[in-house]
Amino acid sequence: MAVDSMEIRALVFDVFGTVVDWRSSITREGRAVGERLGIEADWEAFADAWRGMYQPAMERVRNGEREWVRLDDLHRESLCDLIESFGIRGLDEAGIDDFNRAWHRLDPWPDAVEGLTALHRRFIVGTCSNGNVAMMVNMAKRAGLPWDAILGAEPCRAYKPLPQAYLGTCAYLDLPPERVVMVAAHNDDLVHAASHGMRTAFVARPTEYGPHQERDFEAEHDFDFIADDFVDLAAKLGAA
Amino acid sequence: MAVDSMEIRALVFDVFGTVVDWRSSITREGRAVGERLGIEADWEAFADAWRGMYQPAMERVRNGEREWVRLDDLHRESLCDLIESFGIRGLDEAGIDDFNRAWHRLDPWPDAVEGLTALHRRFIVGTCSNGNVAMMVNMAKRAGLPWDAILGAEPCRAYKPLPQAYLGTCAYLDLPPERVVMVAAHNDDLVHAASHGMRTAFVARPTEYGPHQERDFEAEHDFDFIADDFVDLAAKLGAA
Repeated sequence: MAVDSMEIRALVFDVFGTVVDWRSSITREGRAVGERLGIEADWEAFADAWRGMYQPAMERVRNGEREWVRLDDLHRESLCDLIESFGIRGLDEAGIDDFNRAWHRLDPWPDAVEGLTALHRRFIVGTCSNGNVAMMVNMAKRAGLPWDAILGAEPCRAYKPLPQAYLGTCAYLDLPPERVVMVAAHNDDLVHAASHGMRTAFVARPTEYGPHQERDFEAEHDFDFIADDFVDLAAKLGAA
Repeated sequence: MAVDSMEIRALVFDVFGTVVDWRSSITREGRAVGERLGIEADWEAFADAWRGMYQPAMERVRNGEREWVRLDDLHRESLCDLIESFGIRGLDEAGIDDFNRAWHRLDPWPDAVEGLTALHRRFIVGTCSNGNVAMMVNMAKRAGLPWDAILGAEPCRAYKPLPQAYLGTCAYLDLPPERVVMVAAHNDDLVHAASHGMRTAFVARPTEYGPHQERDFEAEHDFDFIADDFVDLAAKLGAA
């Protein structure tokens, strides 16, 4: 790799799928709701359906069809639709709010805390996620993710892959993009980051979508760093 | 006190003077610049003068006379004026940039890291400062301040005491103001925070302005918490 890690000052991370395992976590949360309400459902399908509504919901914000709205609110709108279509009865408003906060309680991949903790000792580590600040902060508190800064969509008022989500994140850190590494398990996220001059690191998460995973099994471009997991990434960046 | 600490979810901190000792730190940085350039100056007076330009500079942004601009940029404009008036010669652009970054290298008060670390175990701890994100992040990395979130002026696009700086900080955390404590060494900051429904904690920093300190020797209002320092604040909030 041509990149000297001495030039790197910060790493910013995609979160859903890259840092945390949303599918297992949402399935777990759904199952708990089902048990409380005495409802049987395919909670993996529920998790997939909820996540499936994510891009179309953000797209309406990205294309200007609607004003800026936080991901928590988009998630809640999707959840209300799903409660209907999955025939889930018995949740009051507070119950829906709590279920929606399942996205604040996602579990990290097994290597995430150890790898981030090592990276945090040498670099600024932050989020560049479409998740909103409260979601990221609550998730980090619960999981022990040692972020130095919560950046990305909400403070930049732009959902990835809009340029402002990447460039605004670098601007908040007052760093030129070439001193910031975007870390993601998704090829397209990194291609966008690289197009704005950011450095890139790919970490495969081949079970993110469970049996439905169709892509991102491996790096498909010449990214600056390719690592097996965050601990390996820390080693490759000299932060282990 | 009528506030139950079980209701509190987050503490957000004023930073200059409350968490860090800007006056000693800027004096130290000035002295180092002077030694490098072979210049003698009253560096305490320089620090006081630089800080003295802070409120008038922000006021032009607050009152709409000029567009949003980060504190780093306001500091740099003030620094260029001071270099002139103090007759400091020999600093090139990179030298001015580095001197300006003295504000990223402020030392915490002796109790700050220990107290924040204890509070961080039980509560969300964040900044609600007029300092910009890069300044807060770099300062925290150097000093070991365990912030969960960097909020305040820049992400809210409003300098304190504009309401949006306080309310926007609570909104980013998705918490009602009554579940967020504003911590400051300045009575007026807390009076503003309380006017928006936030909880308040006063910690006196009687040497902030050195021999020129004229106020804020003690809490002048009925704040929710009054503590000797951050370790004492942690104890009063059951986080010690």
